Amino acid sequence: MEETAQEQASPEVRERVQDSFDRQGLMRLLGARLTVIAPGRVHIELPARPEVGQQHGYVHAGATSSIADSAGGYAAFTLFPEGSEVLTVEYKINLLAPAVGDRLEAVGTVLRSGRTLTVCRLEVFGVHDDGRRALVANGQQTLIRLDAPRP
Amino acid sequence: MEETAQEQASPEVRERVQDSFDRQGLMRLLGARLTVIAPGRVHIELPARPEVGQQHGYVHAGATSSIADSAGGYAAFTLFPEGSEVLTVEYKINLLAPAVGDRLEAVGTVLRSGRTLTVCRLEVFGVHDDGRRALVANGQQTLIRLDAPRP
Amino acid sequence: MEETAQEQASPEVRERVQDSFDRQGLMRLLGARLTVIAPGRVHIELPARPEVGQQHGYVHAGATSSIADSAGGYAAFTLFPEGSEVLTVEYKINLLAPAVGDRLEAVGTVLRSGRTLTVCRLEVFGVHDDGRRALVANGQQTLIRLDAPRP
Amino acid sequence: MEETAQEQASPEVRERVQDSFDRQGLMRLLGARLTVIAPGRVHIELPARPEVGQQHGYVHAGATSSIADSAGGYAAFTLFPEGSEVLTVEYKINLLAPAVGDRLEAVGTVLRSGRTLTVCRLEVFGVHDDGRRALVANGQQTLIRLDAPRP
Repeated sequence: MEETAQEQASPEVRERVQDSFDRQGLMRLLGARLTVIAPGRVHIELPARPEVGQQHGYVHAGATSSIADSAGGYAAFTLFPEGSEVLTVEYKINLLAPAVGDRLEAVGTVLRSGRTLTVCRLEVFGVHDDGRRALVANGQQTLIRLDAPRP
Repeated sequence: MEETAQEQASPEVRERVQDSFDRQGLMRLLGARLTVIAPGRVHIELPARPEVGQQHGYVHAGATSSIADSAGGYAAFTLFPEGSEVLTVEYKINLLAPAVGDRLEAVGTVLRSGRTLTVCRLEVFGVHDDGRRALVANGQQTLIRLDAPRP
Repeated sequence: MEETAQEQASPEVRERVQDSFDRQGLMRLLGARLTVIAPGRVHIELPARPEVGQQHGYVHAGATSSIADSAGGYAAFTLFPEGSEVLTVEYKINLLAPAVGDRLEAVGTVLRSGRTLTVCRLEVFGVHDDGRRALVANGQQTLIRLDAPRP
Repeated sequence: MEETAQEQASPEVRERVQDSFDRQGLMRLLGARLTVIAPGRVHIELPARPEVGQQHGYVHAGATSSIADSAGGYAAFTLFPEGSEVLTVEYKINLLAPAVGDRLEAVGTVLRSGRTLTVCRLEVFGVHDDGRRALVANGQQTLIRLDAPRP
């Protein structure tokens, strides 16, 4: 367990995040899963496999970005009041090193949470089963909070 | 046919780009395909389907970004001498509107091609089968040219 | 004259933009001036001089960015209803070539104008008195519209 | 003193950075000064005054960005071998809060230093004389190392 109980978001928030994540077809297609839901911070893991690769066999920058974008989006979402939706306004990401490892771990962390806009830091690590871990991508993301449509 | 003959890259370049694209597991997983390979400009199409969606049913920003990143990378690649490889250094993308349509079309266009670094404009359009077409994402990308390892 | 009459913003909008620009201490310090105020597009010129330079004598990326940021901000502002304020949320800029020339010309162009957020393209050209002109920087900017405080 | 002796860069590196900074006309025009030169990290301070302001009296995003860009550039430069030059390839910056305070402090920190490219984190704090301090901008920058021309 990476997280102690008090670092976790409330059960309500965790359920809200997990439910939304489960509706993201792309995360399922990629094989990604939520591993940490803390207030203002969310981790998403992606096992490395040829289906998410680029032409040299590393994980594709698009797959790396996809889990980074979702991690930041849900990190913002953990701080929103109920009945809100989150949309990515924009993000920027640097691919610092080839995305090698047995899996990637994306960490989205809220830097500033405003009434309308939230800014997150995005980090993606290449993680080996033997414990080696290296930062492979680093980014920054702007998100907007919207009121969810009434049902 | 969107492109006239003289706008296409040479057969050698087209083959080089298509071969590399075919080795990108992620593009196959997403269901994306190359539709235009012109000198300094490449188009990639992605049919919209639930498997590439986010929680509201639109195409996920990560899928939108993935085809934009590949389109820019291959646009740069069309201008490289043989024996080169291309890597994304970084990109920034604004999601301007919900990614709706029957398919997305990403267009990568070289803005400046240098000896080491190339900068591309990234555009993604939501395209309906009835011909409606709207810009849904706009970005900017920096790429680096590397010498391919000798076989 | 670069602009024909019908391309100019209305006298009211032009005055609003010019008044705001005149309150930007930094633009005066740099020696920048507004040259075009069209609906959704604004140009700002900066004469090249050692006071705005970096260590190699070219115009500093910060000065290049400053006029680009203001050009984009005022381009957004031309489309806002009266009683609005504009703030830069974020921007990204690529310095494509050394900023040489007798002056720089920044062009901010609205790509998408929404109720809350506006996205602009930023371009900066190095312009020589003999007419040569080259793109030296290219960027993308997100802005937010706020209601001006009641007086 | 914010820095202990062992955190400072070597006297040679400090002199190289200070000499280059002193040739940046823009830093002098803005009234900025170098306050920390550590290996892979550089701080630049800018007193807030109307001459570096925008239309609402806060420090202009362009001035904020200018010191952030220089701080990142010199942070990269501290890790370069002698006879190198540094150029900004691109940067992205989020303006998180109005740039208020008696002065701004920009901190550039190297995230990854490669043979050709360096990536820095950029942070700008608004600092009050009474000790209050808040993050007002956060960014990410890519730089390239060039060989200095032989004299």
